Amino acid sequence: MSYRDDLTRMARLEVVLEGEDVPALRDLMTSSGVVGFTMVSGVSGLGHGGFRSGSTLFNEHDSQSLVLAVAPEERIETLVVGVRELLRERPGVMFVSDVYVSRPDHFR
Amino acid sequence: MSYRDDLTRMARLEVVLEGEDVPALRDLMTSSGVVGFTMVSGVSGLGHGGFRSGSTLFNEHDSQSLVLAVAPEERIETLVVGVRELLRERPGVMFVSDVYVSRPDHFR
Amino acid sequence: MSYRDDLTRMARLEVVLEGEDVPALRDLMTSSGVVGFTMVSGVSGLGHGGFRSGSTLFNEHDSQSLVLAVAPEERIETLVVGVRELLRERPGVMFVSDVYVSRPDHFR
Repeated sequence: MSYRDDLTRMARLEVVLEGEDVPALRDLMTSSGVVGFTMVSGVSGLGHGGFRSGSTLFNEHDSQSLVLAVAPEERIETLVVGVRELLRERPGVMFVSDVYVSRPDHFR
Repeated sequence: MSYRDDLTRMARLEVVLEGEDVPALRDLMTSSGVVGFTMVSGVSGLGHGGFRSGSTLFNEHDSQSLVLAVAPEERIETLVVGVRELLRERPGVMFVSDVYVSRPDHFR
Repeated sequence: MSYRDDLTRMARLEVVLEGEDVPALRDLMTSSGVVGFTMVSGVSGLGHGGFRSGSTLFNEHDSQSLVLAVAPEERIETLVVGVRELLRERPGVMFVSDVYVSRPDHFR
């Protein structure tokens, strides 16, 4: 797998949250230095684990957004701290995974 | 990467299938104890590998759905067995990957 | 995690690019032997890293597509070389990750 040697390992954060919370997420990304993202709007779902926040059930509307950001590990780390705080008050889930990119300068 | 130590490893299952098969997938998730998911409807694609099932080619309509579920490994294992059986008769693909979450209780 | 032993490791390539560049990506997939894919159209985003190509900023329209392909590592390797070349001239990003499939024949 020699071509993998030419790829740089980064972290990928995916956040599923209510559309109205996207601007708050964007602010967190900006302050974490995570400048790029891809967003799929109009996704539906049930909160993983039936997550509730106050009286709000994270449920099967198509009002949610899936936001995907790829960045160096340390920036994702900063972002994760902020998103965890955001989602303490709001319905949503996030998960981190490993990803490899060919042009790391585009993710910094 | 110390923040990773605070994250819990779980499994992520992605299933791409015909929209009409989503209810059957939902039943499998329920019986596997996988209560949370995110769904992107209206995706298109060609069956990976040109997969055919009977006379049905899994093809480039936008009638397919991408369903993403994150759960503890043992629940994904149970779900994978069911989905494999479901997709024996129906067009679709699934894949498993590793993912790390910050609030594992939300995925159980 | 014994069920993982029954799964085959493959590579997953995700490409976010302008909708008008999807046919060029499709051609690259065909010539790489990557016959299956899933596409989410109408995604929005900012180029990871604020990537620019000429005067075109890869920006927050919903004119972008997220294309996901799962295939054996060596085919993804060939495809990555082509996509890197394609994205030299055009806005977009790509990333590779590991994925495990239960029916590897469907991805070849």
